[in-house]
Amino acid sequence: MFKKRLFTPGPTPVPESILLKMAQPIIHHRNPEFKEIFAELNKNIKYLFQTENDVFTLTSSGTGAMEASVANVIDENEKAIFVNGGKFGERWGQLIKTFGGIPIEVKKNWGEPPTTDEIVELIKANPDVKAIYLTHSETSSGTVTDVKEIAKAVHEISDALIIVDGITSVGAIELKMDEWDLDIVLTGSQKGLMIPPGLAFIAVSERAWKKINQTENRTFYLSLKKAKKALESGDTPWTPAITLVIGANEALKMIKNEGIENIWQRHFRLAEGIRIGVKALGLNLLSKNPSNAITAVLMPEGIEFKKFNETLKYEFGITVAGGQENYKGKLFRISHLGYYDELDMISMISALEFTLKKVGYKFEPASGVSAIQNYFLLNL
Amino acid sequence: MFKKRLFTPGPTPVPESILLKMAQPIIHHRNPEFKEIFAELNKNIKYLFQTENDVFTLTSSGTGAMEASVANVIDENEKAIFVNGGKFGERWGQLIKTFGGIPIEVKKNWGEPPTTDEIVELIKANPDVKAIYLTHSETSSGTVTDVKEIAKAVHEISDALIIVDGITSVGAIELKMDEWDLDIVLTGSQKGLMIPPGLAFIAVSERAWKKINQTENRTFYLSLKKAKKALESGDTPWTPAITLVIGANEALKMIKNEGIENIWQRHFRLAEGIRIGVKALGLNLLSKNPSNAITAVLMPEGIEFKKFNETLKYEFGITVAGGQENYKGKLFRISHLGYYDELDMISMISALEFTLKKVGYKFEPASGVSAIQNYFLLNL
Repeated sequence: MFKKRLFTPGPTPVPESILLKMAQPIIHHRNPEFKEIFAELNKNIKYLFQTENDVFTLTSSGTGAMEASVANVIDENEKAIFVNGGKFGERWGQLIKTFGGIPIEVKKNWGEPPTTDEIVELIKANPDVKAIYLTHSETSSGTVTDVKEIAKAVHEISDALIIVDGITSVGAIELKMDEWDLDIVLTGSQKGLMIPPGLAFIAVSERAWKKINQTENRTFYLSLKKAKKALESGDTPWTPAITLVIGANEALKMIKNEGIENIWQRHFRLAEGIRIGVKALGLNLLSKNPSNAITAVLMPEGIEFKKFNETLKYEFGITVAGGQENYKGKLFRISHLGYYDELDMISMISALEFTLKKVGYKFEPASGVSAIQNYFLLNL
Repeated sequence: MFKKRLFTPGPTPVPESILLKMAQPIIHHRNPEFKEIFAELNKNIKYLFQTENDVFTLTSSGTGAMEASVANVIDENEKAIFVNGGKFGERWGQLIKTFGGIPIEVKKNWGEPPTTDEIVELIKANPDVKAIYLTHSETSSGTVTDVKEIAKAVHEISDALIIVDGITSVGAIELKMDEWDLDIVLTGSQKGLMIPPGLAFIAVSERAWKKINQTENRTFYLSLKKAKKALESGDTPWTPAITLVIGANEALKMIKNEGIENIWQRHFRLAEGIRIGVKALGLNLLSKNPSNAITAVLMPEGIEFKKFNETLKYEFGITVAGGQENYKGKLFRISHLGYYDELDMISMISALEFTLKKVGYKFEPASGVSAIQNYFLLNL
């Protein structure tokens, strides 16, 4: 017997009940049976995003929804600000460039979120900027950006749109699209939504529609105008990933049942438990403003990542994510995203201790497990 | 008890063994376990396309792969010929326009394929044309185009690329990418591949790469250059639809096991049986060159499509596809695509007779079923 446990920030574990639901015989996407499911999804996905705006379902990875947020919004030679504090923030810049926009970069060290002031200053220097592209929870560094405060400050001085990559934040971290006055928010299916990858969801405000309607169409498959027209008759413009839509609908019922505030609280508790556990073992976090979706832990001095990771995976069955780009081999990342509870996080710290012992890292035995256990006991 | 049977040209029925395989706990796409699966898929998908070229896996519907075949290939103001003999041929024109190319249309009545001569004449009149966009099996009309002959004639007089929408032909109708010297061929997962929608596959020749490498990147998510770079390390540029990749790999093993020539033969037999069965009932086909993937049958005089379709679906459990655009309400389409055998087609004709009787169409009882049964008996 060898049990495997996934602690990666996408894919995240899929509830067994959803796996079995998706394994039912396939139905046609123009059948009334599917249309009912899609209508229910379209209602409940608004709850997830905390919005009354339409949320569109794309058959793509999260990057496809990022592309939709640029290709439908930024015309050639229009300016857009983006924050590059990690691999996914950097991607906004690549997309703006691909579609002929002028990217204005806010460069941050990995683990440091942008400040509201630096964005406000940039807008004052570039009053013709059309949109600010933010990463709510930067998956590569486990860092959260205060999109609420930034949106408020930007809307006071500018018409620029606030466009938020919520790929690892939606369904994990507090995010209220309408209350915070965000213009576009997007996520992927294999994150807080707890289903396999292959779908992306994108919510679009009235303010964003005004800009989209003035912008030349530079995508066909990811056209938001086509998605909107199709949604008016409860449809998608192209054949959707039917089984994943069925899975997403099931997941959204679970989310509604638990309550979004409770889910945000649960993610905070699980992430806080992990942070307390790893710190008790003498390990350090990369982030100065850690995300409750994912914790990036720096590799301890003298321990080789490859050996650590293989021990964790092949001896103790746990898959975590490694570091990306400059942080390759220098950190590991533990996901709290989606279908996890306290006991999963205890298992994670327990296996981390097993692994650290095997690779020769010195620590007080059971100090990590005690710390996270005590934290959970105090927060029952 | 009420059994449902799907006879639509995508989604097509998914073998139960594949549904259960996809319902296994999800694995991470950077895990060696997944990489092995993806490597096996990448080998077997070449067999499906009958090619030694790389075949790229996109997380999108078939339309995403059509977009990739235009956005990576046609620069602004470059000419491209496309054949519009149905809804999907028409889509090539929309895509060429979206990406700034100059579409040259070959307009055909639905059900009539283009002739090689008319394409050759157009190329002679437009020697600077960069690509010919064809639809191998036009799903809206059930019509097959002789891409083999067209490719041969075009390559003799021009450097233009032959780009083939094989969405309902790959895995159903004879198609030999390398032997026929095709440049780009694409398909979707919910067709001959027998898995749910959400993946598309696109094969690219050396000749096509030469053009792609000279063409400006006008897509990021669907960039073939990025897909190629990722595939060199056995990867995809973005998180793939993991469960669907696992399903596709299982389906390809089934396909290899049956043998592609046997599969083409089976599709011919099933389609021919249906054609014989519906004709015996006094019904007519739309197509002058019918596809073995799908049969479009004209509604008989005086029978209302809505009533016919609801009877077939809600009394006899069978979902077929209706007509599209100008043929809405005027025809129905029976799929032979993928996981079907002779007994499925007998069931289809049987339920068709039940339905025709209920809606008041006059025919010799059991004449359809006898005709298809006799045909199958003679071809055991």
